[in-house]
Amino acid sequence: MSKEITSREQDYSQWYNDIIIKAGLADYSAVRGCMVIKPYGFALWENMRNQLDKRFKETGHQNAYFPLFIPKSFLSKEAAHVEGFAKECAVVTHYRLKNDPNGGGIIVDPEAKLEEELIIRPTSETIIWNTYKTWIQSYRDLPLLINQWANVVRWEMRTRLFLRTTEFLWQEGHTAHATSQEAIDETMKILDVYAEFAEEWMAMPVIKGVKSINERFAGAVDTYCIEALMQDGKALQSGTSHFLGQNFAKAFDVKFSDKENKLDYVWATSWGVSTRLIGALVMAHSDDDGLILPPKLAPIQVVIVPIFKGDEQKKLIDKKIIPLIEDFKALGVTVKYDDDDSRRPGWKFAEYEMKGVPVRIAIGARDLENNVAEVSRRDKKTKESVFLDGLAKTVLILLEDIQNNIYQKAKEYREAHITKANTWDEFGRLLDEKGGFISAHWDGTAETEEKIKELSKATIRCIPLNNTKEEGKCILTGKVSHERVLFARAY
Amino acid sequence: MSKEITSREQDYSQWYNDIIIKAGLADYSAVRGCMVIKPYGFALWENMRNQLDKRFKETGHQNAYFPLFIPKSFLSKEAAHVEGFAKECAVVTHYRLKNDPNGGGIIVDPEAKLEEELIIRPTSETIIWNTYKTWIQSYRDLPLLINQWANVVRWEMRTRLFLRTTEFLWQEGHTAHATSQEAIDETMKILDVYAEFAEEWMAMPVIKGVKSINERFAGAVDTYCIEALMQDGKALQSGTSHFLGQNFAKAFDVKFSDKENKLDYVWATSWGVSTRLIGALVMAHSDDDGLILPPKLAPIQVVIVPIFKGDEQKKLIDKKIIPLIEDFKALGVTVKYDDDDSRRPGWKFAEYEMKGVPVRIAIGARDLENNVAEVSRRDKKTKESVFLDGLAKTVLILLEDIQNNIYQKAKEYREAHITKANTWDEFGRLLDEKGGFISAHWDGTAETEEKIKELSKATIRCIPLNNTKEEGKCILTGKVSHERVLFARAY
Repeated sequence: MSKEITSREQDYSQWYNDIIIKAGLADYSAVRGCMVIKPYGFALWENMRNQLDKRFKETGHQNAYFPLFIPKSFLSKEAAHVEGFAKECAVVTHYRLKNDPNGGGIIVDPEAKLEEELIIRPTSETIIWNTYKTWIQSYRDLPLLINQWANVVRWEMRTRLFLRTTEFLWQEGHTAHATSQEAIDETMKILDVYAEFAEEWMAMPVIKGVKSINERFAGAVDTYCIEALMQDGKALQSGTSHFLGQNFAKAFDVKFSDKENKLDYVWATSWGVSTRLIGALVMAHSDDDGLILPPKLAPIQVVIVPIFKGDEQKKLIDKKIIPLIEDFKALGVTVKYDDDDSRRPGWKFAEYEMKGVPVRIAIGARDLENNVAEVSRRDKKTKESVFLDGLAKTVLILLEDIQNNIYQKAKEYREAHITKANTWDEFGRLLDEKGGFISAHWDGTAETEEKIKELSKATIRCIPLNNTKEEGKCILTGKVSHERVLFARAY
Repeated sequence: MSKEITSREQDYSQWYNDIIIKAGLADYSAVRGCMVIKPYGFALWENMRNQLDKRFKETGHQNAYFPLFIPKSFLSKEAAHVEGFAKECAVVTHYRLKNDPNGGGIIVDPEAKLEEELIIRPTSETIIWNTYKTWIQSYRDLPLLINQWANVVRWEMRTRLFLRTTEFLWQEGHTAHATSQEAIDETMKILDVYAEFAEEWMAMPVIKGVKSINERFAGAVDTYCIEALMQDGKALQSGTSHFLGQNFAKAFDVKFSDKENKLDYVWATSWGVSTRLIGALVMAHSDDDGLILPPKLAPIQVVIVPIFKGDEQKKLIDKKIIPLIEDFKALGVTVKYDDDDSRRPGWKFAEYEMKGVPVRIAIGARDLENNVAEVSRRDKKTKESVFLDGLAKTVLILLEDIQNNIYQKAKEYREAHITKANTWDEFGRLLDEKGGFISAHWDGTAETEEKIKELSKATIRCIPLNNTKEEGKCILTGKVSHERVLFARAY
């Protein structure tokens, strides 16, 4: 089984695709750039979604649902916003099909043309702020803390499973506030929620920072982000939280009266993470044998494979396993007992290795005699013989250890791949030979950033929060700089 | 507050809309026929969804996600299917906007026209069966038991909040089986899941039955349904479960090899319920003062309103209430303590009455002295003084009683509104004067059914499962009939 996937060394990009397909996370679809999220991949997404949703609700947010369609005119109301999204919009122009009277089969009915075209939402600021206009009159209606789980469509030219698909699933938070400071606080609060989720649940270390102007969300005053590093040394933006100022309130004329009855425009934020996180998760931890999943998010945390000949042996194993499964359930561990006799144990071992199940327990007739089972951990590929008594508790501790270990491993890799560059030559060499984040001085202008991108294919991933000030010279122009920023080639 | 809604007597349809809007379940949107599901309405949907999702998983189903877009040619592959959906399809024809070179603002870029138009899924049989073709080869791949929670679009001419919207949220199950019997069993199993959910959770009695040919799903061999009765005597189809035979397997050429290596087409089912259920829930129980929600699904089960003057009284009440809230949480009761001092108790009483919160607890200074609280139930609008000691447990029992009471009330109404008609005159009079389900003989032909619909606006809601056989004559044609079927005017 593992022979079927390309190694990272050989072709990182193919390795990634192989894992997605072979582990059963997703499949290509008949529709250009769209994928099918398969049950195993969707179970992973559900675990991520449930955990994030819980955190959103704990921090006072409520879910709602807004229309899939955005009237074309709405998109145009915020100038930077339409500039950012116009080039990748799926447009609905008609609302009926009919039989071709000339025998050409089913065709679009030309008489069913919409007066105004509808855009499939690429993001929902415009339709939501048009709605907020009717919901917000006074300070009493604020803050409005709303999130939506939805599908969105961006007509990307080059697509990749999970990382960049025409349609993807995400959550988008859209909040409204009475003051600028409150909106900024919200932006930062959500950035923290994202970072905690990435580190504690995905076991993926991230850097929190603010984007440069070039990389800002279309319509935002400031875009904050969490940036992760993949095993090939490329960065991956994993979540963004935008302070939108009063831009959308002005575009949609959303004002509120404060306690003194004065009218002012409302302050806004928006923030989102998407199924792209699954791509990040795959690339952060997996190896040449397949997926490696953090136990806290794995759809199956423990798989038990019985090894037996004949019904009698099977019954003896069952007798030991059934109570063990109850032990696992009592501890909140998701366990699968795979006693399907149409597959051999070797096939199953390879299958669960590919699927990244954190712990595998194999148990055969001789193990029973010795009152033990063979416990293997997916991350280190080590195995040991463990007594059946108290096995569930032993495994629970092992799961925590795996969660920590893959986080530490990813963190060490990331730490080893933040490198300072002081000259343009050094910058280029580091990018080509080592990869990772390059910490370098930049003169702060959009032009220089653009030029660096053209020359090196690296972008400013972020200006880290709590960056230390340091005088220096821009690696490209030699102009004055007051702090280093993080560059990388990125997904 | 309650004065603001139209009474059922006065205008049932307006009463329904008033409740949706005033209770904060949903709002109209700027997009034709689409609504915004507001936080309170969405919380209700989440409760329904979570419960259904749990039942689907317990019965062996897994969630997945398929593309929003369906290539036009796919829809055409199953003849009855395209016939059923072609007239209400939103069609994507372009993938880019641009600035009008003639200064007309943002326009659809004529150069970005799709080679093949994409339909926004009205339902996903076609895209899913096109995918199943690559997933199913042998009996080992079966059964395939998949569900998806998604948005779908049907371009309806007349729309109503929740009951019929252009875009709606739903779940659609799509299963594949090796034998006809297994697929039929699946169809019936899901029908039972739906019926149990409607009765036990929504407190809404339903009749399980099979549809006549005219009312069958486009592409199904048989459509089973649950039918509920609303307070105005109209029926509402609340869920459907389809046995698709081999229709879609044949349309998409999906075959499997059985244990003897013989090839055969795969057998299929599909089934769904949607946000329409929220409309059903509103109409099944509510009264002229607002929403009435079954406790098992209510986003807020208990609201506590403190009545106080000054901080000192407030502190004393808090001291009693805080531990009480903990008691409720320990019992799994969702409780809201509304101590917002910008609203008066009277305003709050009206608000939670409108929102259908099952139990309201009011507590003031004098109550504290007597160690009691005033407990009101929304369904019967009665209130009583209850000792604070053990209050949470008392309320828990009360919640169960409310759940049972609204179910019984709806059931009694439904039972009183299933009436036999033996002549065409009687049939028409019953429809006009009493409404509800009319149990009548019908000659079994599609033509007669169509004629009855034209003349009376009533349709055959279903042929109840386990219907008793009875010889009789069709109410319209006088031809021979072997069983009564249920007619009604319907949503």
